Amino acid sequence: MVNFLLALKECQQHINKILKKYLYFFSKNKTQLTLAMEYGLCNGGKRLRAFLVYQVGELFKIPKKNLDNIAASIECIHAYSLIHDDLPAMDNGILRRGLPSCHIKYGEHLAILAGDALQTLAFHILSSIEMPNIISILANAIGGNGMCLGQSLDLEKQGLPISIKRLKRIHQNKTGALIYAALNMTILAGKIYDKRIINDLKKYAQLIGLAFQIQDDILNVVGSTKKTGKCQGSDEQLHKNTYSSILGLKKAQKKALNLYKQALITLEYMNKLGYNTKSLIELAHYFIVRDQ
Amino acid sequence: MVNFLLALKECQQHINKILKKYLYFFSKNKTQLTLAMEYGLCNGGKRLRAFLVYQVGELFKIPKKNLDNIAASIECIHAYSLIHDDLPAMDNGILRRGLPSCHIKYGEHLAILAGDALQTLAFHILSSIEMPNIISILANAIGGNGMCLGQSLDLEKQGLPISIKRLKRIHQNKTGALIYAALNMTILAGKIYDKRIINDLKKYAQLIGLAFQIQDDILNVVGSTKKTGKCQGSDEQLHKNTYSSILGLKKAQKKALNLYKQALITLEYMNKLGYNTKSLIELAHYFIVRDQ
Repeated sequence: MVNFLLALKECQQHINKILKKYLYFFSKNKTQLTLAMEYGLCNGGKRLRAFLVYQVGELFKIPKKNLDNIAASIECIHAYSLIHDDLPAMDNGILRRGLPSCHIKYGEHLAILAGDALQTLAFHILSSIEMPNIISILANAIGGNGMCLGQSLDLEKQGLPISIKRLKRIHQNKTGALIYAALNMTILAGKIYDKRIINDLKKYAQLIGLAFQIQDDILNVVGSTKKTGKCQGSDEQLHKNTYSSILGLKKAQKKALNLYKQALITLEYMNKLGYNTKSLIELAHYFIVRDQ
Repeated sequence: MVNFLLALKECQQHINKILKKYLYFFSKNKTQLTLAMEYGLCNGGKRLRAFLVYQVGELFKIPKKNLDNIAASIECIHAYSLIHDDLPAMDNGILRRGLPSCHIKYGEHLAILAGDALQTLAFHILSSIEMPNIISILANAIGGNGMCLGQSLDLEKQGLPISIKRLKRIHQNKTGALIYAALNMTILAGKIYDKRIINDLKKYAQLIGLAFQIQDDILNVVGSTKKTGKCQGSDEQLHKNTYSSILGLKKAQKKALNLYKQALITLEYMNKLGYNTKSLIELAHYFIVRDQ
């Protein structure tokens, strides 16, 4: 775990530099808008999605620099989604990563525009890769059939009783789709052709994606505002449907643990082939034990 | 002018069909989110940007179907920008095209998400064209160095005295950049290589882009809410800097007319080469005489 945390920290430092470079390369000047973008983008994210990209890349010996665009675009989309999710008309989150949310710091209008421009930035970054499918994978994951749909269903169902199946669908769209896309884009960039490996990795991404969101639900109940950097208990206040509200805490924790165990199974074939999947195992583990 | 208006109407009918097809092809199911997207996207836009794309295409004998993606992506971006511009934290527009704005009809949260997902849809539509530069041209025009920057500067400077030079920069980013991109993408798709023609067309786009926005400023003062479909006098209420507020109505009208005349000059070389630029002349004229 110590090595894992060190590797994660190294990844954070690396991607933070890359993100800042891209931001000012494409946006050219420092303006109030780019400052709001930088605030939302470079404000201490865990960079787990970028980490997943680089770790899968390492497994298949994909040069790190070939993955910078993918990792950066995924983090831009993640940052934009958080800025917009925090808006008063959405989840009304005033705290993010322990600091005032983007709209509290820069005003709602700049937060909306910063989110908008970060989405654009993600596609701009990807435009230099000569693989149109890359754009399509990302777009498919985040639009009216992916992340935005998940967030809209989440808000639509607030305070209404829903089934666990329905909640799973919301979580898969809201959080899972982007993690799944990160992996799919890496597979494409790394020219991985073994169908069994591709399927296993995709399944792994789906399982840890859902586990991640369940742990998020759990932390919103039992985590501390200081650690998570978000307002503890906000889901309950908003009458959100979460795994912990529907199943109860213990069953939610058990569900996350089960998903983790299933994720390990998806790595067995690669282990047999001699791939060292240690970091992917540790990442899956981190997803369900993290306290921030 | 009669033929021009007929051609414009035909273009509107064509692109409206294409847009609806793309919307449900990529978003798959009808949801509250896709309904909000459809409302913002298919709600009676003038489709002048799409028209520009097809008219330049006709001039250079580019098959219409090769331009559908470009025209549709541009209209998606335009629709997303209007939905977000109308939000209470931005221009607080309650009326758009004579109907309640998207956030009035569907709520702020769905309007934000519909705008977000329409931006994604634009890039999704473009992802099927195997020309990465197309993505880059669009992204460059609409993000932190283009349309979003223009809108943020516009809001930042509300109520503050600014120079006409500064206002021109705001307008160029806010409105001009997307029109310029529409033309650049068409040039790329049509494989137009004559440098003089490319430069002339780019200049034409810049000139009519600015003229369009000046006419928008003018209509906000002298136009009727019934015709424009937006609240007449809203710019003044918001203390917006506009060409009419800075120069006065008459000088603003003269400026628009001058831009139109300059736009005609950019078409002379093409006329000499035997291209029939009649529709581009009429489009430029429409930009400054339109009452809606």
